[in-house]
Amino acid sequence: MKKILNDPKDFVDESLRGILLAHGSQLRALDEDPRAIVRADAPVAGKVAITTGGGYGHIPVFLGYVGAGLADGVCVGNVFNSPSADTMLAVTKAVDGGAGVLYLYGNYFGDKMNFDLAQELAQDEDIAVESVRIADDVASAPRDEREKRRGVAGLFYAYKIAGACAAAGASLAEVKRTAEKVNANVATLGVGFSPCTIPASGQPTFSLAADDIGLGIGIHGEPGIKEKKMTEAKALVGEMLEYLSRDLALGGGEEVSVLVNGLGSTPPEELYLAYGEVVQWLDRQGVRIYRAYVGEYATSLEMAGFSLSLLKLDAELKKYLDAPANSPFFKQI
Amino acid sequence: MKKILNDPKDFVDESLRGILLAHGSQLRALDEDPRAIVRADAPVAGKVAITTGGGYGHIPVFLGYVGAGLADGVCVGNVFNSPSADTMLAVTKAVDGGAGVLYLYGNYFGDKMNFDLAQELAQDEDIAVESVRIADDVASAPRDEREKRRGVAGLFYAYKIAGACAAAGASLAEVKRTAEKVNANVATLGVGFSPCTIPASGQPTFSLAADDIGLGIGIHGEPGIKEKKMTEAKALVGEMLEYLSRDLALGGGEEVSVLVNGLGSTPPEELYLAYGEVVQWLDRQGVRIYRAYVGEYATSLEMAGFSLSLLKLDAELKKYLDAPANSPFFKQI
Repeated sequence: MKKILNDPKDFVDESLRGILLAHGSQLRALDEDPRAIVRADAPVAGKVAITTGGGYGHIPVFLGYVGAGLADGVCVGNVFNSPSADTMLAVTKAVDGGAGVLYLYGNYFGDKMNFDLAQELAQDEDIAVESVRIADDVASAPRDEREKRRGVAGLFYAYKIAGACAAAGASLAEVKRTAEKVNANVATLGVGFSPCTIPASGQPTFSLAADDIGLGIGIHGEPGIKEKKMTEAKALVGEMLEYLSRDLALGGGEEVSVLVNGLGSTPPEELYLAYGEVVQWLDRQGVRIYRAYVGEYATSLEMAGFSLSLLKLDAELKKYLDAPANSPFFKQI
Repeated sequence: MKKILNDPKDFVDESLRGILLAHGSQLRALDEDPRAIVRADAPVAGKVAITTGGGYGHIPVFLGYVGAGLADGVCVGNVFNSPSADTMLAVTKAVDGGAGVLYLYGNYFGDKMNFDLAQELAQDEDIAVESVRIADDVASAPRDEREKRRGVAGLFYAYKIAGACAAAGASLAEVKRTAEKVNANVATLGVGFSPCTIPASGQPTFSLAADDIGLGIGIHGEPGIKEKKMTEAKALVGEMLEYLSRDLALGGGEEVSVLVNGLGSTPPEELYLAYGEVVQWLDRQGVRIYRAYVGEYATSLEMAGFSLSLLKLDAELKKYLDAPANSPFFKQI
């Protein structure tokens, strides 16, 4: 295993230590617990706070979206494992500026269990908490069973838009409503080329034949729609967009934001090539791209592959998408 | 070869098309040639312009540093191959705002040959041009033969500092002097874990045994100092910093900027773990870190591994390092 590691069991804490050392002007740990991180200026009085969390290994998801115009705090689990309810409660109390807290995270069983418990405990302490679980992976369930879908790169849009809404001074109910609007209007499909290896186990998350790819494979290696032979970019992007377009019922005339997300080791040079194909395909369908993001927004350590996300836009979503944001891992000027 | 590709011979142009489509508000191609890219607002009247260029496959090097507070134009070659003198001349003419142009690029034979020719041709057209070749890779030659060193991640510091100097209204001679000051004060050492594959050839850039790493291997797979067994992060970072510290004659009391650069597929989680080790090591030596950068700043497609760079600082370099910058691939607010 050629990884930058000391003892694999210290991987998460040592990595978080580096992040806190590098970005101390923007992030701080609570009581020197690197698993509980908040904006350096938290709590922001009168602002709805957004907290998130989940397993480690998906940077910039989750902690990379703690910053101005985004989320306020995060709790960090072990690699691909949920953090605890206690940590989420501590983060909740630290970020609450008196206007309530939105829990915004990916739709996974372990996270839901722990964060629901934290929500109850916070409410017992008279902090208003609401929760929205992002469920954007079209490969994991059909749209009419959306509560079963996994949360993947669409999380980025939820942080961006709910974060901008909160920064604009909206109420907890409004911030929750915009997060739910993102959830209803976003769809993601990923494709895996090769797995990552979890440091503590030394095991790859999945295996594929030398020229096979996994369409719809999850960011923890969950099974996808099918395995298939690698094809040219144009055909692959077209097939992925067929799924997304059908899921969002795009008929032409819509405006969307596009996210081409690298899963870890796929170079930006390839992601941009994919983006060129996305532009051509959507143009043929009469769908207009309002704003595009290309890069690493939700990863799985060194997994190879990428995902495409489409977010169907209206005037409100466009306004919040355009707002500035500033975290150590995502800046929009 | 599981890459996002159509015909491998179209890789560079199709990838550049995607970049220009995604970032049209900040970058534009000259005469629809995607190999010649300038800032959307070029030329900036009265400002010294900085142009750069080199082979493709190192994003954000080179084109990722075209932006405000950085470089003004770039010419793009094939993967790991120099662009032409003609393209560099076209870029030079498009960015010249009347205050002259600095050619700032990595120290490689092919680039020097082509850009020296472009410089002559530009001077024939009465454009003042100076050149600085960044040569920061300590593995490629000893310091007293620095003109033989390869240019690697230290290029980032040259763009950042010379770019800020030019943005501040300095003369061509001043901008050149600051770039040369960076060159004299920066040192980089990389380590490769696994190679990348060039799309057009399908061949990996080097090969290593399953538990071997290449200390000092170049970003095109050039031979390094030695192959050795993978070790724990603390020992590996310490060994790399010994080379850099000796090269820069650090004795304690200095201030440096640190760059932990991922070469492609090494996850940010690991890079930050390395940064934590850098902090501890430099602290023991009495060297103060003024500003740190961790992420992908000079890559080699999907090569695994990382490099460490140290830039020895003085008041002038700190001032320019702190200045804002804004390109599609690098933002400092």
